[in-house]
Parts: sequence; structure tokens; C-alpha cells
Amino acid sequence: MSSPGDQTANLLNNLTKPPGSLGFLEDIAIRLSEITGVSPPRVPESCAVAVFAGDHGVVEEGVTPWPSEVTSQMVLNFLSGGAAINVLARHVGASVTVIDVGVAGDLKDLPGLVRANVRAGTRNLANEDPMTDDEVEAALNVGRVTARDLAKTGCDLLATGDMGIGNTTPSAALIGAYCKKTAREVTGRGTGIDNTHFERKLAVVDKALARLDRSEQSPTYLLRSLGGLEIAAIAGFILEATQARVPVVVDGVISLAGALAANAINPQVREVIFAGHRSTEPAAQIALDHLGLRPILSLDMRLGEGTGACLAMGVIQAAAKITLEMATFDSAGVTNKDASQ
Amino acid sequence: MSSPGDQTANLLNNLTKPPGSLGFLEDIAIRLSEITGVSPPRVPESCAVAVFAGDHGVVEEGVTPWPSEVTSQMVLNFLSGGAAINVLARHVGASVTVIDVGVAGDLKDLPGLVRANVRAGTRNLANEDPMTDDEVEAALNVGRVTARDLAKTGCDLLATGDMGIGNTTPSAALIGAYCKKTAREVTGRGTGIDNTHFERKLAVVDKALARLDRSEQSPTYLLRSLGGLEIAAIAGFILEATQARVPVVVDGVISLAGALAANAINPQVREVIFAGHRSTEPAAQIALDHLGLRPILSLDMRLGEGTGACLAMGVIQAAAKITLEMATFDSAGVTNKDASQ
Repeated sequence: MSSPGDQTANLLNNLTKPPGSLGFLEDIAIRLSEITGVSPPRVPESCAVAVFAGDHGVVEEGVTPWPSEVTSQMVLNFLSGGAAINVLARHVGASVTVIDVGVAGDLKDLPGLVRANVRAGTRNLANEDPMTDDEVEAALNVGRVTARDLAKTGCDLLATGDMGIGNTTPSAALIGAYCKKTAREVTGRGTGIDNTHFERKLAVVDKALARLDRSEQSPTYLLRSLGGLEIAAIAGFILEATQARVPVVVDGVISLAGALAANAINPQVREVIFAGHRSTEPAAQIALDHLGLRPILSLDMRLGEGTGACLAMGVIQAAAKITLEMATFDSAGVTNKDASQ
Repeated sequence: MSSPGDQTANLLNNLTKPPGSLGFLEDIAIRLSEITGVSPPRVPESCAVAVFAGDHGVVEEGVTPWPSEVTSQMVLNFLSGGAAINVLARHVGASVTVIDVGVAGDLKDLPGLVRANVRAGTRNLANEDPMTDDEVEAALNVGRVTARDLAKTGCDLLATGDMGIGNTTPSAALIGAYCKKTAREVTGRGTGIDNTHFERKLAVVDKALARLDRSEQSPTYLLRSLGGLEIAAIAGFILEATQARVPVVVDGVISLAGALAANAINPQVREVIFAGHRSTEPAAQIALDHLGLRPILSLDMRLGEGTGACLAMGVIQAAAKITLEMATFDSAGVTNKDASQ
């Protein structure tokens, strides 16, 4: 008996188009069947973006011009519906769940916010481990619970998002460590920093990578040594999506750092991940290559929040609709190439 | 006074995101303002794909394994809603208008079809001019009238589509002629042909290009000498969209050949064109470079019909929504980078 993925591939070849002519859209449809075990794949109707927010001790090194308080201000903005992720989520019909897993500022009792604060920001990774093992476990669990809750309510396509001033620094360090690259290869300008901030950031990533004990074997060692709370939560979110066989679209470098962390814990995560887009951060392509993922979009986006992943959800929905709604050569009475020869 | 494009660029810099961090989405929003003269750009609410269908005398050279009858069968399929373009148009909320500008088969009185048949297929471009000057004019006019009618009913985002068995052959020849490339550089495998068909196609494109009188100055000379009726109609469609200042998304090589033909008549067309996607056909990138266009999507699609253009409409809508729906730093109470320094 053929697999659901093979069945969808066969179905695609009988639709009124030359075989393979919808390119990557066809691969996406086949992967949806492989992930969910259903052919043709169901159209994802209940899409959800989870935006994990956390702060970073490393901002005291001056790696970014944005103050940490912006993290909590942006959480407010997410909850009011005024951020880019809200606009793009509405556009593709996705819900936005905002989770405080490690914000430093006082968020009070904001309606709609998921309160799961493990710690008010990480320690400064330039000098010490930003998290303890227990904090990593707790943050992973926040992500797991979030994915489980969303899957329980029927969400059939998930996306990862992040908010955390300074978080391209731990992301670059993590991608450098997982993919065995130097600070210079993985460090980018994040949301757009000047040379002064960039040189500091580069030095910090270099120092953090130099501090690592390369003989350590624990799958969460790098998360503890370099990570962020929202990055660990994203890893947990992806791990749970893998268990539940729900496709999950990852965003840019922060989400990709989380995906690499999840992959270190369970390499099966690659089966359920779609890469939403190729961020302009240099570490993004390195992480995508490491995970063997082809990005759906390539629009020079570098905002995070899940924006690239969210926009890609529309393409994934389109891919599923192709297999479900198109006529076959037989049903439409169209002469097939082979039949005419 | 600043231009609408500059106003939108300024607005984008005040939204709650680092300047430029939405990358190409921001450029799209700015271009929408430049085209329509409105800032912030309106969200395109009435999107329309025009699929121009025509047949090609060159199929008698054996350049494709698909019989010409498939053109009219696919027109039926478009009208029944079962083709890829129908699925993707529904997905982005666009209407599909199907125009017979040059189908060879008998289409009878199909409800919904726009009857504007100039000629039952072109002559064989391997041996002679496929169209007369009068036929080119008539086909251009079909496109113009189609765009005018759609704009009149309020369509604010147009896309070009095509159907015509054999039509990547005239498209390759046209792109070769406009961009001064050889047959080998522009000829691809279209919807997917084997080596035998490919070698014949290559020889035909080479022969057609060799037949040209390079001293000819008429802006429609190449259309007459190499073109297709649907390609000329697409050119007319783009020319009219330019007059009406309605943005028009072009699809793959057939639409790009039409765009080059329109550009030869009026170079202002480049102001209103969005490139929907990068087709896998080698001539696509050549035409995009010639017109100075960056494709929105790059999904290895090679189906035509307007499918790539249609899917890109969703991204264009998203770009407009960003400028309209996002909060500013002031309105959301988010500390801006500059304010904090």
C-alpha cells in the first residue's frame, strides 16, 4: 500500500496540469499528507501563530539600540492587534497567541496574554550561562503546553513567532554552535544595527562560542549555555507539534535557532517543519541548510514575530486547495499528454 | 510636497517595527502608492485575472507533446472552475475572466467566455510571420478592452494569464529578440518536454530569430514576426492598465513576453507591473532582468494560466494592509530606537 504522500503525488499527476508544473506547491501538498497521514491533505482551516516573548541579559553589552522595555511594549501591541504579526495573521486567517515566557518588564494582568513567565529575562550570555537546566526545561514545557492546547482546540497549522529585544544575539550564537560556524559567519545586523552595535554583537557571539565545552553531550546543553527563554519555548512548541503530527511553519533566525534546539532533542522535528521564509540574517540560510529546509518565501524580511511564517501559511493553504479542488484530466475531459501520443 | 510613494515610505518608518524590516513587502506598498497616487495605498479588494487563450501554428513542428485541442478543453475547464488558476483565484479572492482571442478549436457558445477571436490560431512562426499587422492590432485591442472593462467595474489589481498549447515557443523567441539572447539561452522545457521535443523547439526558435530583419523599427514588428494572439492581448492589457494606473501582476514567460512587447510600445508599462513569480523557464529571469523587475514568489512554478501572478496577489494585499492596519510607535506607546538614544 502506498503512503499518503505517494497517494497525493499520484493525485497531483492526474490533475489538469503538466506533471510537476506547480513546482514547490506540489511538494508542500505532498509533505502535508506525509505529516498528517491524510491524502489528499485537508486544507488547514484553523491556523495559529504562537508568539513567545522573552528578554535577554545580553542587552547590557550594547548589542542593540532598542531598550528591553520594548519587549513588553510590543507584547501590549500584539494584544491590541496593531503589530505586523496581527495584520498578517488576520490576512491569512490565523489566530495570534502571545505567551510571556520570560519578559523582564511588568506586564500586569493583560487580558489575552498567556502568563507563563519562567524568569524575568535571561542572564548575560557573554559572561555566563543565560539559563539553568531547570529554566530550560520549564521554558521547553511552556512551548509544549502551548502547542498541545492549540492542537486540542483543532488547530491544524501552527507557526512560531518571537519577541525579545536582543534575541538575534543568542540566535546567532546557537546557530553558530549547532552548525559549527564562526561568529563572523552567523552574526548579522538583526533588525538593523549600526557598525558600533554590530562589532559589539560580533565580539559577544565570539566570546560565547569560545566559552562552550564542546565535549558536552546533553541535548539541551547549548540552549542552557547560549539560549533564550522564548527560543527554548519555540523548541518545545516544535517538539510537541512533532508528537501531534501537526505541521509547524518556522519564521526567521530566532525560530530557526529554536528549530535547531528541537532538532538536537528529536531529529524527527524536521518531518513536520515548513520553513516560512528566508530572512536576511546570514544565520538563516545556514540553519535552513543544516535542517534541509527550503524556504517558501524570500522577501528580505527581518522583523521576526512570526511574520514570515504567517505569510507563508497562505501559500500552504493554497497548496492543499490545489489537490482538493482541481479537476482531473478525466473529470474535465482534457486530453492528457500521454494519451495523445 | 512629497510624492505618494515617499509619503508611504515615511509612514512605514513610523510603524511599530524597525525601519525596512519588512523588506520587499515595504517596497510593494510604496510602489502601490506610486502607481495609484494614493498614500497609504488602498488594499486591493477587487482583484481580477484575465486568461487570454490562443493557439499556435508552430505546434505542427512538434515542439510540444500536447495536442492543440487541449487549449479549448482547458478553456472549458477554466469556465467550470476546475483548473489551477480557478483554485488559486478563489484562494486570493480574485475573479477569473477567460478570453478567446485566438483559439483554433470550436468553443461554441460557452457561458462566461469572452468571445474575441481574432483568428483561429496563428501561422507557423518557423516559416512565416504568425500574424499580420492588422491581427496584432486587433489582439492588442482585445487586451486593452478587457483591462478597460475590468477597471470600469472597479478592479484595482489585475493579473495576466494565458492558455495556448505551444506558447512557450513564441514566448522564448520574443524574449530572445527583445533581450538580444540566443535560442539556446531562452529556450526551456516549457511545461515539461523530452529531449526530442526540446531539440525541435530549439531549432524552431533559432530559425525564427534568424528570420528577423534587425533593421525593422516598428514597435510591433517582433509581435507580428514571432508572437501569439494571447501574447499580443496580454501586451494590450498591460498597456491599458498603464493608462488607467491600475497595478498589474504578470505571470511567467508568456506574460513576460507580453510585457516586453508592451514595453516596446510604451516603456511606462514598467511603472505599473509587478512580477508575480520567477518561473523555471530560463527566459523568465532574462525578461525580469530586462524589465528591472523583482519577482514576488519563487516557487519553481511553470504552469502559466496566471497561477504565479494570482498567488502573488495575496502578498500584494498583505503589503497594503501593513501600511493601513499597523500601529505607529506613538499610537502604540512603543519606544522608538532613536528616542531611546
